[in-house]
Amino acid sequence: MDSVNRRISNIEQHLSVNSCSDAVQTSGTLEPVRPFNPDKLFEYLFPHHLEMRRQLIAEFEAPENELMQRAPFGLSYTQERDLTMEQTKRLIEIAKRYVKVIDFVRDPTKIAAWTQSYRMRNIATTTLFGVHFSLFGATILQLGTDEQREKYLKHVEDFSMPGCFALTELGHGSNVQQIETLAVYDHSTEEFIINSPTITSQKYFIGGAAKNARWTVAFAQLKVGEKYEGVHAFLMRIRNEDGSVCNGVKIADCGVKMALNGVDNGRLMFTNYRVPRDQLLSRFGGVNKAGIYSSPINPAIKRFAHNIGALVIGRYIISIGCISFSAVGLQTAINYAFTRRQFGEDNNERQLITYAVHQRRLLPHLAFNYGIHFANDYLLRLLAEKENRKDKEIHVYASALKAYSSWHNRNCLQDCREACGGQGFLADNLIGPFKSETDIYTTFEGDNVLMYQQVAKYILTEARRKPPPEYNPPSDAFRAKTDSKHLRSFDFLLQAMTARLNQYVVLVANKLMEAVGSGKPVMDAWNDCGSYILNLGIVFTDKFILERFIEGVSKCPDDNQRKAMSLLLSLMGLFIINRDTWFIKYQFISVDQSDAIENEISDLCKEIAPISIALAEGFGFSTKTMGPIGRDWIAENRY
Amino acid sequence: MDSVNRRISNIEQHLSVNSCSDAVQTSGTLEPVRPFNPDKLFEYLFPHHLEMRRQLIAEFEAPENELMQRAPFGLSYTQERDLTMEQTKRLIEIAKRYVKVIDFVRDPTKIAAWTQSYRMRNIATTTLFGVHFSLFGATILQLGTDEQREKYLKHVEDFSMPGCFALTELGHGSNVQQIETLAVYDHSTEEFIINSPTITSQKYFIGGAAKNARWTVAFAQLKVGEKYEGVHAFLMRIRNEDGSVCNGVKIADCGVKMALNGVDNGRLMFTNYRVPRDQLLSRFGGVNKAGIYSSPINPAIKRFAHNIGALVIGRYIISIGCISFSAVGLQTAINYAFTRRQFGEDNNERQLITYAVHQRRLLPHLAFNYGIHFANDYLLRLLAEKENRKDKEIHVYASALKAYSSWHNRNCLQDCREACGGQGFLADNLIGPFKSETDIYTTFEGDNVLMYQQVAKYILTEARRKPPPEYNPPSDAFRAKTDSKHLRSFDFLLQAMTARLNQYVVLVANKLMEAVGSGKPVMDAWNDCGSYILNLGIVFTDKFILERFIEGVSKCPDDNQRKAMSLLLSLMGLFIINRDTWFIKYQFISVDQSDAIENEISDLCKEIAPISIALAEGFGFSTKTMGPIGRDWIAENRY
Ligand SMILES: Cc1cc2nc3c(=O)[nH]c(=O)nc-3n(C[C@H](O)[C@H](O)[C@H](O)COP(=O)(O)OP(=O)(O)OC[C@H]3O[C@@H](n4cnc5c(N)ncnc54)[C@H](O)[C@@H]3O)c2cc1C
Ligand SMILES: Cc1cc2nc3c(=O)[nH]c(=O)nc-3n(C[C@H](O)[C@H](O)[C@H](O)COP(=O)(O)OP(=O)(O)OC[C@H]3O[C@@H](n4cnc5c(N)ncnc54)[C@H](O)[C@@H]3O)c2cc1C
Repeated sequence: MDSVNRRISNIEQHLSVNSCSDAVQTSGTLEPVRPFNPDKLFEYLFPHHLEMRRQLIAEFEAPENELMQRAPFGLSYTQERDLTMEQTKRLIEIAKRYVKVIDFVRDPTKIAAWTQSYRMRNIATTTLFGVHFSLFGATILQLGTDEQREKYLKHVEDFSMPGCFALTELGHGSNVQQIETLAVYDHSTEEFIINSPTITSQKYFIGGAAKNARWTVAFAQLKVGEKYEGVHAFLMRIRNEDGSVCNGVKIADCGVKMALNGVDNGRLMFTNYRVPRDQLLSRFGGVNKAGIYSSPINPAIKRFAHNIGALVIGRYIISIGCISFSAVGLQTAINYAFTRRQFGEDNNERQLITYAVHQRRLLPHLAFNYGIHFANDYLLRLLAEKENRKDKEIHVYASALKAYSSWHNRNCLQDCREACGGQGFLADNLIGPFKSETDIYTTFEGDNVLMYQQVAKYILTEARRKPPPEYNPPSDAFRAKTDSKHLRSFDFLLQAMTARLNQYVVLVANKLMEAVGSGKPVMDAWNDCGSYILNLGIVFTDKFILERFIEGVSKCPDDNQRKAMSLLLSLMGLFIINRDTWFIKYQFISVDQSDAIENEISDLCKEIAPISIALAEGFGFSTKTMGPIGRDWIAENRY
Repeated sequence: MDSVNRRISNIEQHLSVNSCSDAVQTSGTLEPVRPFNPDKLFEYLFPHHLEMRRQLIAEFEAPENELMQRAPFGLSYTQERDLTMEQTKRLIEIAKRYVKVIDFVRDPTKIAAWTQSYRMRNIATTTLFGVHFSLFGATILQLGTDEQREKYLKHVEDFSMPGCFALTELGHGSNVQQIETLAVYDHSTEEFIINSPTITSQKYFIGGAAKNARWTVAFAQLKVGEKYEGVHAFLMRIRNEDGSVCNGVKIADCGVKMALNGVDNGRLMFTNYRVPRDQLLSRFGGVNKAGIYSSPINPAIKRFAHNIGALVIGRYIISIGCISFSAVGLQTAINYAFTRRQFGEDNNERQLITYAVHQRRLLPHLAFNYGIHFANDYLLRLLAEKENRKDKEIHVYASALKAYSSWHNRNCLQDCREACGGQGFLADNLIGPFKSETDIYTTFEGDNVLMYQQVAKYILTEARRKPPPEYNPPSDAFRAKTDSKHLRSFDFLLQAMTARLNQYVVLVANKLMEAVGSGKPVMDAWNDCGSYILNLGIVFTDKFILERFIEGVSKCPDDNQRKAMSLLLSLMGLFIINRDTWFIKYQFISVDQSDAIENEISDLCKEIAPISIALAEGFGFSTKTMGPIGRDWIAENRY
């Protein structure tokens, strides 16, 4: 037990110098290495509006913006809402100097730069801002006529029309095409009469509605004369200037949530509430002075996709948000893994980062964070295209990435939390609260299971148009290659993803046809194949992300950055192969290869570990943004 | 769009009758079936102290105990603590009439009955109670001499000594054997002088310490004369009767956490704090009047396991807690899946429970909840054994089940949350808050990764004593059997688990020997095999749980109960086989079998779906305990 003494004095010594850099001097420890400048990598990863990003990050971290740094931890429900509202107002002030609502169509890269530059601890604030700016604002932009844009968008930007977005109802969340809110046109007064006919038709979960919003875009079934014209968006006041609720509107509170309590989600009901004719957002259909409805898009069912089109950009924003939150979680957990020692020789305990199982818990997430980032960036390029916009692809990739990234973020932050032990549970260390606040990302703006169904539908339709090549297992010679170089190669990984997707599409198509052939209604067949369809969506997205990752890495002009990211790419690819039985079952890989891949993953983790801090820093968050365990946590815990 | 009208009137009609039972009358819907009385199943699952359980459940749900039903949702940090303390006091009042600390050794089945009967929405209260009663109290019981038990336990029971349990330090959580707090015996005054020599030696995360506790059992390295005697527990005052902090003690607050804020976790530091000689808990080592240390257990290193033995029962309590919380989550989500309709024919949308993918998200968790329950129950029987107590087995099973059940609970509540869509995020529906509050179960009372390492160590030692039979893939004939009966059979499932464990033990042992053979220090070899070791722990626990599940089901005297639970058992077993590449890779199953198993899982889910409510109810929670979505949520959302 003399060792205890030795260790104590060792610790005291250790504490007198910087606990991070000290690690370098002790034997048997891992020293973080930066083979490239993380700031330069940041520039490669986030090339758009770099100057604006720098300014914004500085603003968010500036002492005079201390308000933006305040966290809602430990506040009551109402205090949390007050703080969030105060911060949202300030965020709008800042936004004015950088972005306009029109940028959603004029320059989406600016919206991305803005969103990726948040440096806040209260995620509810960015959510409430998003509801107002990206859901309320962008809906007016996308569904409004030029005059409506002209008339209202400036009030969105200066917050003189605090708005919310009322699509979901108690009875319909995913299947919003079937909402029950009714808008009947009354030609005598040139107004729409809005009604909530049932309990289930009440608008539900509407962010901003319980307390803050004065306006909403509410979605309703439009009826003109005897004809139903489908779901349309109505711009309407819900509160008067003095904050009182408008006649004909009833508002209730959704109550406390498991997190995100800064957002005041509310319930809305309408009784013979009258909305002027020119407040129907009419880009894709409106009623003219003569009381005649017309639309460039027919039949009514087709308008629906256009009318909820604003959700596409919302899904993209969720996906980039997930990458940011996971980046903060990873950087925190990895920093801590370098400075936290537990077990090992008495006077020189091991850093957590040196444990193979610990590397395995964290580093694959880092790899996926990079892969998804490049895929997001590809989607952004599509969104920014002015000519021949590939709207169908945009819809598919946005849905796929929304689902993929939010499940990634959920798993990543969970593992980061656990990898930090009890410290991961303390609010100030951010991982835990970030995890709770973003938990709902898997659900809102389109539930993940439904997102993948939409992706699968697209893949199956494409496959009918252009059937994928038949799947044949590779040659024995190919399956005998177990060397690192082969297994890590982008070619091998891409072949693996492609083969699996091709085989899986046919498998699912056959299952569906079989079921239908045996007399099942199509819908039943579809639903009975639900697990396969979900997997098909994931398998497709795995491949899509790997492709974008390969492109992003290959184009990187800096050798060291490229080398580092290549390791992550190989790790991601092999990790996917390793976790899915498919590859062995369909003999894409041999048993020897499977063993080799298992080893390769360990080796990759070992190689990445020393540069993992540098790689995490590539996302541009400074240690100042981290909680205490991401910094010098021993000093922070001085008495 | 006329269908909207039809559907609306349909909904209105639907609402006028009970929305649950209404389901029966519509075509294409799934009707819940109860082939057995869930109360009777409850009696089979929870046979100990049934009468006491009934009384307790009634007490918790009684209107005069409204205090116990209050939830901390939306409260501030301090309000949450106040509520939790108030509830804890009441809980202690109730406990007095049912359990004594001595029951931890006298009748653990009573402790189980007590713990499984909580019906509360504030998990912090049960945690704070647990800290006082099961950590502070049971430590005095297990480490105290007869006189110490006699003297103190009554004050634990009547809460006149509100206590906490101070083991963890900032520097050492998992590796508590290396804590730095020092207790030096001063024979001149017959006192121990307690010191916290470094910043990292401060006690950290101590539940109850920040505000409530007057007493603690603190663990420290004992030094008598020049000799270190290892970690010992000291009973000490930290606050005076007036609530002021004792001289020589410093207390700080750990601050806000991501959840469980009702528990006041604190930090403790000691400076020359003197503790009388007879407050060293001396069952396994103490200092006599002459100043001589003696212990029945030598060397010092061996005493450690005894001195933290109270944690074993703590792990068991976590494991049964997980089953309860998951049961509430499952029952809520399954009830909702029967009453929630989304998509399908316009005037008759499908119930969520009819979607194959939805069944697949929920029902395997129900199966695991049963399996783990039976394994917990087996552990309880071991704990209750008076003669020849199998202490080593108890330790291993408690560690394995703590890890297994807390990861199960984490995943189960996550899926329940998501399966309820946005409603799962509302606090009143309980799933979300339960998930956040129990997130830390994977960490405290022994981090899961470390738990599995201990399990693996045991397995490997046992394997050295008694090597498992060599693994050989089954015959082609065996691998050709794809019929339901075979695949669902307990024999097949048990063979699968056994074969995998046997092969895996050898695989891991060989990996370790190879590494050591190549010159690696044992500790390095161990750490480099970290992922394998983790898996070995899980593979062992899979088998252990399946065995206990088979026993539990086979012994059930009621045919219908047994039949229903058999389906769950087959589902659990096949689910494990389906998710692990091992079975195909090592040719335990054929590719055809793998396909058949995939289908079998779907079929089992379909068969279980109609009886899933009845099965969920077997855990004894009434719908009254659920949030609104577990009941008639449309009615609850009336304006
Ligand atoms: C915090 C928060 C903020 C929100 N903010 C807004 C807002 O500002 N404005 C707004 O309009 N809405 C808002 N929403 C609502 C949100 O968009 C919906 O919750 C979401 O779209 C999911 O709908 P739902 O909750 O009705 O889930 P449901 O549609 O009921 O889905 C429940 C579950 O059933 C499954 N499921 C449903 N259909 C199928 C199927 N066909 N096959 C297989 N599985 C299926 C889903 O996967 C899901 O797991 C918010 C919600 C929350 C929680
Ligand atoms: C809410 C809360 C309440 C608590 N209440 C109490 C209390 O009342 N009394 C008390 O004494 N303590 C209490 N604790 C402390 C708790 O018991 C510890 O947090 C827990 O034991 C883990 O220790 P740690 O946090 O130091 O994690 P560490 O030991 O630092 O572990 C961090 C991570 O490293 C990994 N790791 C560590 N060593 C290894 C290894 N050898 N190989 C691979 N991976 C490794 C772990 O898996 C973990 O993921 C509480 C903690 C919390 C958060």
